[in-house]
Amino acid sequence: MQSFELDKSDIQRIRQALDGDDDALKVLLKEYHASEIAILFESLPQESRERIINILPSETASEVISEMDYEIHPEKILENLHPEKRSEIVEEMDYDVATDIISQLPEEQQDEILGELDEENASHIRQLLTYEEDTAGGLMNTQVLKVNHNLTKKEALEEIIRQSEEMEEFYTINVVDNHNHLKGIVSLKDILKSKNTVPIRELVNPDFVFVKADTDQEEVAKRLSQYNLTSIPVVDDEMHLLGRITFDDVIDVLQEENTEDILKISGVSEDEELAGNWKEAVKSRLPWLVINLITAFLAASVIRYFDQTISRLVILSGYMTIIAGMGGNAATQALAVTVRRISLSDLTDNQAYRTVLKEFTVGLINGAVNGFIVLIFALFYDNNPMLGLVIFLAMTGNLIIAGITGASIPLILKRIGIDPAIASSIIITTFTDVFGFLLLLGFASKLLL
Amino acid sequence: MQSFELDKSDIQRIRQALDGDDDALKVLLKEYHASEIAILFESLPQESRERIINILPSETASEVISEMDYEIHPEKILENLHPEKRSEIVEEMDYDVATDIISQLPEEQQDEILGELDEENASHIRQLLTYEEDTAGGLMNTQVLKVNHNLTKKEALEEIIRQSEEMEEFYTINVVDNHNHLKGIVSLKDILKSKNTVPIRELVNPDFVFVKADTDQEEVAKRLSQYNLTSIPVVDDEMHLLGRITFDDVIDVLQEENTEDILKISGVSEDEELAGNWKEAVKSRLPWLVINLITAFLAASVIRYFDQTISRLVILSGYMTIIAGMGGNAATQALAVTVRRISLSDLTDNQAYRTVLKEFTVGLINGAVNGFIVLIFALFYDNNPMLGLVIFLAMTGNLIIAGITGASIPLILKRIGIDPAIASSIIITTFTDVFGFLLLLGFASKLLL
Repeated sequence: MQSFELDKSDIQRIRQALDGDDDALKVLLKEYHASEIAILFESLPQESRERIINILPSETASEVISEMDYEIHPEKILENLHPEKRSEIVEEMDYDVATDIISQLPEEQQDEILGELDEENASHIRQLLTYEEDTAGGLMNTQVLKVNHNLTKKEALEEIIRQSEEMEEFYTINVVDNHNHLKGIVSLKDILKSKNTVPIRELVNPDFVFVKADTDQEEVAKRLSQYNLTSIPVVDDEMHLLGRITFDDVIDVLQEENTEDILKISGVSEDEELAGNWKEAVKSRLPWLVINLITAFLAASVIRYFDQTISRLVILSGYMTIIAGMGGNAATQALAVTVRRISLSDLTDNQAYRTVLKEFTVGLINGAVNGFIVLIFALFYDNNPMLGLVIFLAMTGNLIIAGITGASIPLILKRIGIDPAIASSIIITTFTDVFGFLLLLGFASKLLL
Repeated sequence: MQSFELDKSDIQRIRQALDGDDDALKVLLKEYHASEIAILFESLPQESRERIINILPSETASEVISEMDYEIHPEKILENLHPEKRSEIVEEMDYDVATDIISQLPEEQQDEILGELDEENASHIRQLLTYEEDTAGGLMNTQVLKVNHNLTKKEALEEIIRQSEEMEEFYTINVVDNHNHLKGIVSLKDILKSKNTVPIRELVNPDFVFVKADTDQEEVAKRLSQYNLTSIPVVDDEMHLLGRITFDDVIDVLQEENTEDILKISGVSEDEELAGNWKEAVKSRLPWLVINLITAFLAASVIRYFDQTISRLVILSGYMTIIAGMGGNAATQALAVTVRRISLSDLTDNQAYRTVLKEFTVGLINGAVNGFIVLIFALFYDNNPMLGLVIFLAMTGNLIIAGITGASIPLILKRIGIDPAIASSIIITTFTDVFGFLLLLGFASKLLL
């Protein structure tokens, strides 16, 4: 019995074994679960990864490659393997995983690998390669457990045992008619409990959840987790059973979508790989920074417009940064809460309206409190009550604008079908910069000069 | 056959039926899945929710309450139900869900509800109430399917069918010895495939993954998703089987942790409920804004220090906001990528070092590019090459600082055991504000005056 935990000493041991011969390495690797070796790969160079894959039995090697983080490019290992070993490994993989990995290679190499596979494997993968990556079709595994609805319990059970031999795992049993139309699902438990002669069609639950092949992966994830399903069948427009998507694929999708959300809201392109190199990072972030630079010129032009005001009251310079900065932060808060809320569930018109109203109220209160603190400071430190009033008004106004824009911009984007997370803090803070300066310098030029 | 999709017309129909009598409402509700009714509840007032729960059969009512978003307080429905109906509903619930909901009520009411339940239900829930909410113990369901390792295949199968009668769903079968020590797990598939007389102990896979009751829920989620498990057994220090955690609980944990990450990084308290009212939002965000106000005074004091420089060259005011704003955004980018990366996997020392180095490089390049654009502007618009040089240097320097702090502060926090996401943009942008002003005004006072 063994609990799986990886630490530095494991990495150390493998590294040392890599300096030795294959036999000792082989013995050591037996102690590790495939998904642990996949994690170890992240801290090993490419040659060592390839050597380990060549040493491992094909079944384990296949699992390791399946579990590898896509950011360390499992396809590169396939690329360099001996064709015979490669076909063994790919044939052991789930079709959906094999497809994902192979799809990363240039078309020429895809054809080469597919050509080495047996006909059944090749045709499954070829079909999967035709679906968009982020749809149910791109996510599904075509290897599904299915029984004809005319079978009796006894026949069905034999069929299930036969089919499950070739399958790593199954969760629900799909019931189809003679033309592969999905008629419903049934659990193994219900089959076991029933009498031997009862036909499967009587056990089927006809109220079941499924998705079409072109359904977006985010929608698939929502549905599976809403209905607490271990797997969900995928059908075409005529209800032909095409495949299934399992909860572990959905967990990966959720993590991926969450990463995209957090990156986009922070002004990073959703495609940036977290562990990517500086070149990818520059490519992903520079465009957003240049957009920000343009909007910053907009804010700066407001300041330029009030040149005279500032030069007559230089003290305003310091307060400018306080008002704009506080607005930016308040907007980021409202934005994060709203974007996250939208991404977890759709809002009705009424809920959307109440959200904006709530953020208005929050902005008003937080603005007034913070404005009051700065007012007190201006009163005692700068000894200027009128300046204090100007700052109080500008702070309150700017935090109200922060709340309204932080909530309403992602809501509007969602309505018109644009990803709300793209309303990144970069976009939102332009509003609070421009309005912060306008409010402070506008009030100041009226009331202080 | 039916696909589940909710839209406005459904809400409309239910609303209309709520104006009519119970019988018509009852008929209409039959068309909906429990988890759909739970979603509909979000747009219905409390009285309507309670009326619907009272109309539904206890089994469905129990599912609806189990599926309700915690933010619309399922415990309030329990509170007001007739004791008899209430005990029926709670007894239908999974123990872990019942515990989560009951734990939201004051102790007095908890005792009242537990007193109404039958002994078995009450004692399970009482035990679960003793575990911390965010540990494996707090997450687990104590209703597990287990068989003694001495049983034969035939006996075990009968036992499994018997136990599964009372269970909504099961995924793996736990094998225990006479003293309830967990010896391993076995899949139904492996049992079905074996001969009738083979003892279960020979089918057990002794290499299996489990968690202790006090394991943090985030760790549980990582392990379950890493090993692609549908469920994971929970044991005490002596390996006694206590319960199981299923993939659907883990999906909820992942969503919860992701929400916390995105909120904290944006300077919102992790406890703020996304659909909460303005009072909760003010309570959650005002402290962060006040912290930000204090740090903003720090940045403003840098500006004050250079009062003379600004009054002699008011043109600097506009550039100040550009340099500080760009630094803040670049820091937010580096922060988001680093925090998300840490939250998905632990980094080795070497990976941490390389991350900071990467962000330094990204800052240098993005700083130089943006600095160059502003330099060109200063050259042609302000006709001042020296000013251009000052801005170029300040921009490059500030984006380097942004990259280094955005990456290293969360890494350091993680090392010393503080949640890295707390290094919110509010904290990080203080650095870029202060250093942005220092660099621009410092260079300006040396080179321009």
